[in-house]
Amino acid sequence: MVNELSHYNQAGEISMVDISEKLSTKRTARAHAFVKMSAEVLVALPANPKGNPLEVARIAGISAAKKTADLIPLCHQIPLSHVSLDFTTEQDGIRISATASTTAPTGVEMEALTAVSVAALTVYDMTKALDKAIEISAIYLLEKTGGKSGDYRRPESK
Amino acid sequence: MVNELSHYNQAGEISMVDISEKLSTKRTARAHAFVKMSAEVLVALPANPKGNPLEVARIAGISAAKKTADLIPLCHQIPLSHVSLDFTTEQDGIRISATASTTAPTGVEMEALTAVSVAALTVYDMTKALDKAIEISAIYLLEKTGGKSGDYRRPESK
Amino acid sequence: MVNELSHYNQAGEISMVDISEKLSTKRTARAHAFVKMSAEVLVALPANPKGNPLEVARIAGISAAKKTADLIPLCHQIPLSHVSLDFTTEQDGIRISATASTTAPTGVEMEALTAVSVAALTVYDMTKALDKAIEISAIYLLEKTGGKSGDYRRPESK
Amino acid sequence: MVNELSHYNQAGEISMVDISEKLSTKRTARAHAFVKMSAEVLVALPANPKGNPLEVARIAGISAAKKTADLIPLCHQIPLSHVSLDFTTEQDGIRISATASTTAPTGVEMEALTAVSVAALTVYDMTKALDKAIEISAIYLLEKTGGKSGDYRRPESK
Amino acid sequence: MVNELSHYNQAGEISMVDISEKLSTKRTARAHAFVKMSAEVLVALPANPKGNPLEVARIAGISAAKKTADLIPLCHQIPLSHVSLDFTTEQDGIRISATASTTAPTGVEMEALTAVSVAALTVYDMTKALDKAIEISAIYLLEKTGGKSGDYRRPESK
Amino acid sequence: MVNELSHYNQAGEISMVDISEKLSTKRTARAHAFVKMSAEVLVALPANPKGNPLEVARIAGISAAKKTADLIPLCHQIPLSHVSLDFTTEQDGIRISATASTTAPTGVEMEALTAVSVAALTVYDMTKALDKAIEISAIYLLEKTGGKSGDYRRPESK
Repeated sequence: MVNELSHYNQAGEISMVDISEKLSTKRTARAHAFVKMSAEVLVALPANPKGNPLEVARIAGISAAKKTADLIPLCHQIPLSHVSLDFTTEQDGIRISATASTTAPTGVEMEALTAVSVAALTVYDMTKALDKAIEISAIYLLEKTGGKSGDYRRPESK
Repeated sequence: MVNELSHYNQAGEISMVDISEKLSTKRTARAHAFVKMSAEVLVALPANPKGNPLEVARIAGISAAKKTADLIPLCHQIPLSHVSLDFTTEQDGIRISATASTTAPTGVEMEALTAVSVAALTVYDMTKALDKAIEISAIYLLEKTGGKSGDYRRPESK
Repeated sequence: MVNELSHYNQAGEISMVDISEKLSTKRTARAHAFVKMSAEVLVALPANPKGNPLEVARIAGISAAKKTADLIPLCHQIPLSHVSLDFTTEQDGIRISATASTTAPTGVEMEALTAVSVAALTVYDMTKALDKAIEISAIYLLEKTGGKSGDYRRPESK
Repeated sequence: MVNELSHYNQAGEISMVDISEKLSTKRTARAHAFVKMSAEVLVALPANPKGNPLEVARIAGISAAKKTADLIPLCHQIPLSHVSLDFTTEQDGIRISATASTTAPTGVEMEALTAVSVAALTVYDMTKALDKAIEISAIYLLEKTGGKSGDYRRPESK
Repeated sequence: MVNELSHYNQAGEISMVDISEKLSTKRTARAHAFVKMSAEVLVALPANPKGNPLEVARIAGISAAKKTADLIPLCHQIPLSHVSLDFTTEQDGIRISATASTTAPTGVEMEALTAVSVAALTVYDMTKALDKAIEISAIYLLEKTGGKSGDYRRPESK
Repeated sequence: MVNELSHYNQAGEISMVDISEKLSTKRTARAHAFVKMSAEVLVALPANPKGNPLEVARIAGISAAKKTADLIPLCHQIPLSHVSLDFTTEQDGIRISATASTTAPTGVEMEALTAVSVAALTVYDMTKALDKAIEISAIYLLEKTGGKSGDYRRPESK
């Protein structure tokens, strides 16, 4: 079973998975994160006259998606054909989702997950002066399409 | 209230907070994350004969802490004097904590939070072939010391 | 005269200037750029319902200031204590200024200049579909304070 | 008209343009910049016995072209097949042009523009000890070839 | 003969070699390095209860391979399809080899060489407290396959 | 003995060494590398009319020194106050040395070693079309000054 873990070669040593025999096909992934914060902090966010902190988070998420292979040691360098992030203000926090797509021999799950994670950290950074108990949770894959392992859609995804 | 949000200047425009009048003092921060995964995946982790995926995550977390200012748009560049990560395998997943410290005019909360987040994403990457439903949660600040705003310790932190 | 050029050592070879004997003092710099564009493109900018392209440029400029030493081969790594950008929409384009400050043994002119340059390139990128003839001009230092060479203020700066 | 701005999706939110349906074809771009400096500084440049500051600028420009997607938030990651820079010393400054090419689903205008901009900033950095009033101007696209929008050649380009 | 040097264009100026007419084909490279250290240091390496320094070096080497184009000014950006490193403890030091592969218009010799070099520097960093006389040597190409210039195998490679 | 290895904490786990109690003092390091190549290749190097490949290597080495903490996982981020490289053409190759200095709580040995290593790799890259058997060797520390462990000078350094 051990060798089924990603990024281990025959001898059990860590290596970047060999994708040289895989086909370059269209692949997409969509990931989710939630930033839980108090009602007081939430109220302050959109009121800012010159710009919304969520816009900083959006750009941070897009930029981070492009740095995924620099952050996650065994990730391949993937040329992203599209990245976008969506933010929804809910009663107890900010819901974030990110979509990434590529035409490449491997998928973009990590790119979408990195985008929501860094966007969430950026929201945290922009609001931490108001509330130190902010919590980031529910970072998971919503769905992926393309690739040999087929499509996936998280059962309870919203 | 808007102007209490970090990273906004007098005019309400986004800018990097001016720390030129703050003293360079010792500051530490400790952050937490949890990677929820099935028992089957957990069993596979330490069994690997040549190295534990958690060691890849540890190094990814340390490296990411050093890149915080490159990931979070309004973070200052902080020379870290120490970073370490701790992993505990529990019944339903991996608990991660990171400690960061510096002697600088601003704190290292974001560095500790970035370390646990990227370590968690790396654990995800190393195990995603076995379980696509892995979820990262409970990313929060455990405690911070130093700085004008004083020490903080999360009430229910474990 | 040759050896008065920055970044050349005694032997005339390129090297990073030795600042090990210089004092760490407060230094600031302010730089300017102008993005000349047609009235049609200018009108389109602020109308966007979800966010202004200038906010993307602002964040790009701040992030770029932190990467100056990675872009300009002989620049020292300077921990910025503050960066902000200001955008003014004028009749024939966008005027950009950036302020950077540090407490370090060398100045932040290049950081301020890099901030306005990359902000201007980002405005270009966000509008190039509408007008390929956009031109970036007037990238110069408005003023600097601190350091052995003293303060400087550009004569005709506006 | 708003939605004609690059990098906005249907809902008007900032996102990286989706290029997943575009064909990978050969594309080139050529950009221009000018560094205006006094005759005294210009005379000092080539006289240096061990190397010309313009060579540092040339390498900085090539390296920067490869970092375009890291600097401009919504730029795609493009594998450049060629980059070169050309410097001409004129009576009142240095004229810089850069050529970039790729085989990719989107163009390399931003890569060529980033190359000339960072090369110009590097010339500034190497000469700023002699003249603080140096000005970078005339950063624009000279021409582009390839892609759905067709070829472009700047009317008055020299 | 001068123009046979890589990375010089017709006019003898430095530029990134134009690979726009080259075919994207499968290419591999294998490189070698040796870290010479005393028997005392060698004994200490594997005894560490929580992890082997060679695992840190392995991850550093993989990450560095992905940064080759950012380190070597005229290298093209190559999407690596595989990287792995192999470490052998010998009587007088650690033998390192790295394999890199891609499907691209140019080869991955520099990526394999960068991987072994940075892995060797990391071994040095992890052991330098014990022995300051550690020496890195024998960094060379073991073999390459693919590309117009054909396969190469170092005569005396072990 | 295990715990004498750098970068291991009390529990034997990998971490960045805690330097928060160390004093910020002036520290220097000087490192060495040799690029062995055939006489034919050596002859071609300086003859190039527009610039010497060694100048590309010099800039690559300086830039790499600034990226040391990004390459070597457990290195601290050190603000370099000076970096320079020296190249000597000998009968059978190019001798490279690099000097780095800082005022910081830890030394710059890795920065000097990274500078010579990447400069050597760049020389390799610029000449590999002429000779695939080029070998990089003799990467070692020539001397260091400053810091608690005192000065060091390699016995047989040349």
